[in-house]
Amino acid sequence: MDKKDSVTIIAFSGDLDKLFAAFTIATGAAASGKQVNMFFTFWGLKLLQQTNKKPKGLNWIQKIFGIMVKPGAEKRPISKLNMAGMGAMMLKKLMKRSRIPSLKEMIATAKSLGVKFTACTTSMSVMGITKETLIPEVDNIAGVASFLADAEKSSVTLFI
Amino acid sequence: MDKKDSVTIIAFSGDLDKLFAAFTIATGAAASGKQVNMFFTFWGLKLLQQTNKKPKGLNWIQKIFGIMVKPGAEKRPISKLNMAGMGAMMLKKLMKRSRIPSLKEMIATAKSLGVKFTACTTSMSVMGITKETLIPEVDNIAGVASFLADAEKSSVTLFI
Amino acid sequence: MDKKDSVTIIAFSGDLDKLFAAFTIATGAAASGKQVNMFFTFWGLKLLQQTNKKPKGLNWIQKIFGIMVKPGAEKRPISKLNMAGMGAMMLKKLMKRSRIPSLKEMIATAKSLGVKFTACTTSMSVMGITKETLIPEVDNIAGVASFLADAEKSSVTLFI
Repeated sequence: MDKKDSVTIIAFSGDLDKLFAAFTIATGAAASGKQVNMFFTFWGLKLLQQTNKKPKGLNWIQKIFGIMVKPGAEKRPISKLNMAGMGAMMLKKLMKRSRIPSLKEMIATAKSLGVKFTACTTSMSVMGITKETLIPEVDNIAGVASFLADAEKSSVTLFI
Repeated sequence: MDKKDSVTIIAFSGDLDKLFAAFTIATGAAASGKQVNMFFTFWGLKLLQQTNKKPKGLNWIQKIFGIMVKPGAEKRPISKLNMAGMGAMMLKKLMKRSRIPSLKEMIATAKSLGVKFTACTTSMSVMGITKETLIPEVDNIAGVASFLADAEKSSVTLFI
Repeated sequence: MDKKDSVTIIAFSGDLDKLFAAFTIATGAAASGKQVNMFFTFWGLKLLQQTNKKPKGLNWIQKIFGIMVKPGAEKRPISKLNMAGMGAMMLKKLMKRSRIPSLKEMIATAKSLGVKFTACTTSMSVMGITKETLIPEVDNIAGVASFLADAEKSSVTLFI
């Protein structure tokens, strides 16, 4: 594939506003025919966790992190003015009024356009997240070598 | 234009320290003869708002966001240690002592070097920001397709 | 050198989680034979400061910044849930359990793989950091022109 045809995005942040930017770029690029790779790591991985499946065998630190940072598309905080979730709720209202799709809808759009979702193995290990508790939209579980292979073939690579 | 001649920067953050990094790179690249595109989105858009023109017809959520995040180059917070603006003020003092230009001066330099400023349509719609309330330095109001077209022609693309 | 053989990373953030991501990418790329350049600026510069050498001749603002943001690999906060260092300590425990090297070890690995460390002159001037108080692993003290020259030769450039 030609180098110009790929876009690779590291979704490091689990914040609604940054994820929204990441998905706007990802779906925009995919809609124009590009191969798009999204590599979810660290806080970004929380987006890919199922909300109804609790991970098992967590140690106490992983439990605390799991409680303090909620999983799933509906529970993303915003990077500023979150105010215990009130800011995020207000932003979601604003986005709806501007007829901007929700994160959940953006995930569906991204998948229908062939965007590849990779979950970072190292972050999964650190946070005690297992494959079984990730949403089925995840295509791939891999590490930095996989990211670098994608990035090399991309005309645009972003850390968000 | 040759691919090596362009640099594209997404200014997502409205923080002084990150904007300062974005403008240092932008003016540095433009001074060395490169075409530089800055795409202002989300919190970054606050930099481009005029401070003496209040946007009209805002809903209550947009009003709250408008009050909590002040517009203009003089009112940017810093990403850490902001301490209700005191940290930002201290940082500006330090920068002045090191004879580093202010954000306002950097905007002027960027424009005189031909840096293209694009304001993100989607963010404008979400926050209720209209074209009339943006500073005249803005060249262009556009969405993700415009960013992707610029990024493809760039040797360096950064999300800041 | 072929464009595909270089990776350039701006380490702007001084946060443990983001530095960890930066070093994972840097060492991964270097291990696969790429030239990797890390450009440390702003808060990221705190990683390169020696902890046992106090900078001299600081003004009062630089002193306050110096006290509020501690130098060195051991004292990095995390970008979320830092909770006065408790979150960072917990994350370090989790990383150790997953047998992930510490930041200090990652610095050593990066250097043994030939990763180039550049400290940003402008940030040093602003924060009052002198060459003598940086760790010996720093190869280079330079500004934005040096970063741009590296970035142009890179297939992947990230702002972290």
